[in-house]
Amino acid sequence: MRPYELIKRKRDGGSLDADDIRLFIEGYTEGDVTDYQMSAMCMAVFFRGLDPVELTAWTRAMLESGDVLDLSDTPGVKVDKHSTGGVGDKVSLSLAPLAAACGVVVPMVSGRGLGHTGGTLDKLESIPGFEVDMPVAEYRRLVKEVGACLIGQTSRLAPADKKLYALRDVTATVDCLPLIASSIMSKKLAEGIDALLLDVKVGSGAFMKSIEEARALAGTMIGIGKEMGKRVVALITNMDEPLGRTVGNALEVVEAVEMLRGRAPADYTELTLALTAEMLVLGEKAPNVEAARAELEKVIASGAAEAKLKELVVAQGGDAAAIEDLSRLPRAQHTVAVLAERSGFVTRIDSEAIGLAAMALGAGRERTTDAIDPAVGFFLDRKVGEAVKASEPLVTVHYNDDTCLEEVKRRVLAAYSVGDAAPLARPIVVERLE
Amino acid sequence: MRPYELIKRKRDGGSLDADDIRLFIEGYTEGDVTDYQMSAMCMAVFFRGLDPVELTAWTRAMLESGDVLDLSDTPGVKVDKHSTGGVGDKVSLSLAPLAAACGVVVPMVSGRGLGHTGGTLDKLESIPGFEVDMPVAEYRRLVKEVGACLIGQTSRLAPADKKLYALRDVTATVDCLPLIASSIMSKKLAEGIDALLLDVKVGSGAFMKSIEEARALAGTMIGIGKEMGKRVVALITNMDEPLGRTVGNALEVVEAVEMLRGRAPADYTELTLALTAEMLVLGEKAPNVEAARAELEKVIASGAAEAKLKELVVAQGGDAAAIEDLSRLPRAQHTVAVLAERSGFVTRIDSEAIGLAAMALGAGRERTTDAIDPAVGFFLDRKVGEAVKASEPLVTVHYNDDTCLEEVKRRVLAAYSVGDAAPLARPIVVERLE
Repeated sequence: MRPYELIKRKRDGGSLDADDIRLFIEGYTEGDVTDYQMSAMCMAVFFRGLDPVELTAWTRAMLESGDVLDLSDTPGVKVDKHSTGGVGDKVSLSLAPLAAACGVVVPMVSGRGLGHTGGTLDKLESIPGFEVDMPVAEYRRLVKEVGACLIGQTSRLAPADKKLYALRDVTATVDCLPLIASSIMSKKLAEGIDALLLDVKVGSGAFMKSIEEARALAGTMIGIGKEMGKRVVALITNMDEPLGRTVGNALEVVEAVEMLRGRAPADYTELTLALTAEMLVLGEKAPNVEAARAELEKVIASGAAEAKLKELVVAQGGDAAAIEDLSRLPRAQHTVAVLAERSGFVTRIDSEAIGLAAMALGAGRERTTDAIDPAVGFFLDRKVGEAVKASEPLVTVHYNDDTCLEEVKRRVLAAYSVGDAAPLARPIVVERLE
Repeated sequence: MRPYELIKRKRDGGSLDADDIRLFIEGYTEGDVTDYQMSAMCMAVFFRGLDPVELTAWTRAMLESGDVLDLSDTPGVKVDKHSTGGVGDKVSLSLAPLAAACGVVVPMVSGRGLGHTGGTLDKLESIPGFEVDMPVAEYRRLVKEVGACLIGQTSRLAPADKKLYALRDVTATVDCLPLIASSIMSKKLAEGIDALLLDVKVGSGAFMKSIEEARALAGTMIGIGKEMGKRVVALITNMDEPLGRTVGNALEVVEAVEMLRGRAPADYTELTLALTAEMLVLGEKAPNVEAARAELEKVIASGAAEAKLKELVVAQGGDAAAIEDLSRLPRAQHTVAVLAERSGFVTRIDSEAIGLAAMALGAGRERTTDAIDPAVGFFLDRKVGEAVKASEPLVTVHYNDDTCLEEVKRRVLAAYSVGDAAPLARPIVVERLE
C-alpha cells in the first residue's frame, strides 16, 4: 500500500479496494500515513465521494482501529439513538430512561457540544455528581443492570475517527457526506449495539439544511448499517426552531424531567415519543410504533420512566434528589427578558443564531477546550406560531456574567421574526427511512 | 487570515484575494500553516484551479519567501531558459555557452534528475571538479565575468516552493497546472532574470502528453511572467523520442560538446539553435531569430562557443581538459548492444520507458537521496525513422554493474517499435507562444 498511489487514484476518480482502505486507515492510526496525506485524501474524497464498498471498508477500518464493545452477556437487543445535532435537543435525556423503562437495552456513547449545537454529556454533567467517564467494565455492568448507560467516547473506541475528526476540523473537510456518515457509524457500531435509530435533523439549525441532504446522509448511514449487519432506521426531523422551550444545559435537564412527567412542550414531547417508539420496535419490545406509543404513555403515567432516570443518575454517581427537586440543579443568578418590538405572531426563530447566542452566553463552546457554565441559557417564552404583544417577552435569558449580555440579547432578538399571521404548523417528524 | 476559511473558500469554488494568499504562503513557510492544511489546499486547487490573480499572488508569495537575486550590476538583459523536462535533454549544456558567446547574460538555476527525466546539474557534475553549489556573491561574480553560470537551487531561493514541492510529491498534487506553473516561475524569477524562454516538452517522454496540456502550461507561465513584468516566450517542442542519441550524464556532456563543434544529431542541434536564437532576441543581441541563427553559426564555426564552455567549466572549478579530450570524462567499463529482432524502420521509441530504464541502470534516481553513476547510459544507434536490419544494434548500453542489465536490455528493446515503413518526420519545434 503506497499512500501516494491511493490518494492519486481517489483524486482521479478511481475506486479503492477494501484492503487498500483498511491499510490506509490502519497506517493513519499508527502514524505511518501522515496527517498531510490523510488531509489530501479527505479533500479528494470531498470531491470524488466514496462508493458503497469503499464507504463500508472505511467505516469498518475506523471501527476496528479500537475496541469493539461486546455486550453479548446482556440479553436482549441493544439499541442506541444518534442525533446529527440541533439546538435545544435534549431528546437523549428522556429517550434513554423511557426506552429502558420499557425493557430496551440502551448503550449510549454521546458527545459534547461544539459550535451552535449542545451535547448530551454537557447536559448530564449539570446534574451534580453525574459521571460520564468510567471503565468499560463498569459501563458494561450498568448497561446490564440498569438497562441504559450514557458515557463519553473513550480513547479506545474508534481512535482513528477521533484522530481523523480533529484533522478534518482544521482542513475544511468536515462537511463531507461519506466522512460524516462513516464517522458516526464507526463510533456507534463500536458501542456493541445491534440496531441504531438515527435522528437526522433538517433545517436552519441543523448541519443538513435541505431535505435532500438529510435524505442522502440518512440513506448513506442506513447503507453502512446494512453492510455491517445492523438494523438502522432513520427519522428526518424538523430543526427550523429550537426543540422545546429551553436551550442551555441545566435548563434542558429540567425540561427533560418534565417530559417524563408528561408536562413538556408539544414538539419536544412528540419527537421523543416518536423516536422512542421506534427504539421499542427495534428493541423488540413492541410489535409496531402504535403499540410502542401506548407502552410509553403507560411508563410516563406510572412514574416508571422518571424512576428509571433516577436509577440511571444514581448508577452514574449523580444526585437523584436534584431530579426530584429540580431547584437543586445549577441555577443562574440573574434573568432578563428579551421583549418583542411589535405585536403579531412568531413566524421564524433562527435556531443556529439562538445556538450561537447560547454559546456566547457560556452555555456552549467554540473550541473543545472552552469551559461552559451549566446554569446559563434561554427559556423560549414564545415558539413559532405563538402570538406575542409588543413589550411581552420572547425569550428569558438566564445569565451569571453580563459581559456579553447586551450582545446576546441583540442576537436573540434578531433571531426572532414576528409577522402578522401565524405560519402553518409543521410536523416535527418529516420522513421515515429504513 | 484563518487557514481553515481559505481552504474552505477554495474548496467551494470561491476566489482568494492576493493578501490572503500571501499570508497563507508566508504562514506555511514559517510553519504557522501546517503541512496538512497546505496539502488540503493543494488538493482543493487541483480540483478548483487558481484564477490569474490568485496565480500571480501565489507565485509572488513563493518568490518573496526567500532572496530575490539582484543582478543589476551586470549590464544587459538577463535571460534564462527552463525546460519542463525530457529524456536526453542536454540543451542547457550547449545553449548556455552559445548564448553567452553571443553576449547574452545567462543566470541559470537548474535542477537534478528525478524519475525518468535527467537533470542539468547531474550532467554538469560528470565533468571532473565541476561545482554547482557556491555562495551567491560568487554566482553574481561569474554571471558578470563569464556571462553565464549554472548552479543548483539554494535553500535561500524560493524556500516556500522547495517545502511545497516536497509536500506535493507525497500527496499526489504534483500534476496540477497552476501549482506546476507557479513552482517553475517562482524559482526562475528569484534568479534575477529579465526575460525567460520556456521549452515546454510534449509527447510520450514529457509530463505534458498532449499539445493542449502543453499550450495550457505555456500560456499559464507566460501569463504569470506578464503580471510580473517579465518577457516570456515559450516553444512547445517534441519529446516523442529521446533528444539526440545519448541518455546518461557523461554521455550527454560528450554530445553537448560535439554540438558546439557542429557535429551533433539533427534533432538536438535544431532544438538548441531554435531555443538559443530566441534567447538572443530576448537578450537584445539579435533583431530576429534569423539574424540570431546566423550569429550562432558564426560562434560555432569560430570555436568561440566551445571556448565559452571551457571558460564556464574552469570558472566553476571543472577540468577544461576533459572538454578538450572527451575521453577524460567518466566512462563505463562495459558496453553491450541491444539488437533489433527484425528488419525495418524504427517507428517509435517510448522516451519515458528509455528514461526509466536509464534510471534502473543507475543514470538517474527514483528518490532524491539515490546516488547516480555519471558514466552509465545509452547510445541510441537508431532513432525514429532510421532503417535497421535484424541483429543490428538499436541501442548500446554503457554499464558498470550488471545486476539489472538483462532487465534494462529487455526494457530498452520493448521501448522500440520497428515497422515496415518509416513514419513521417516530425518537426522538433511544434509551436511558439508569447
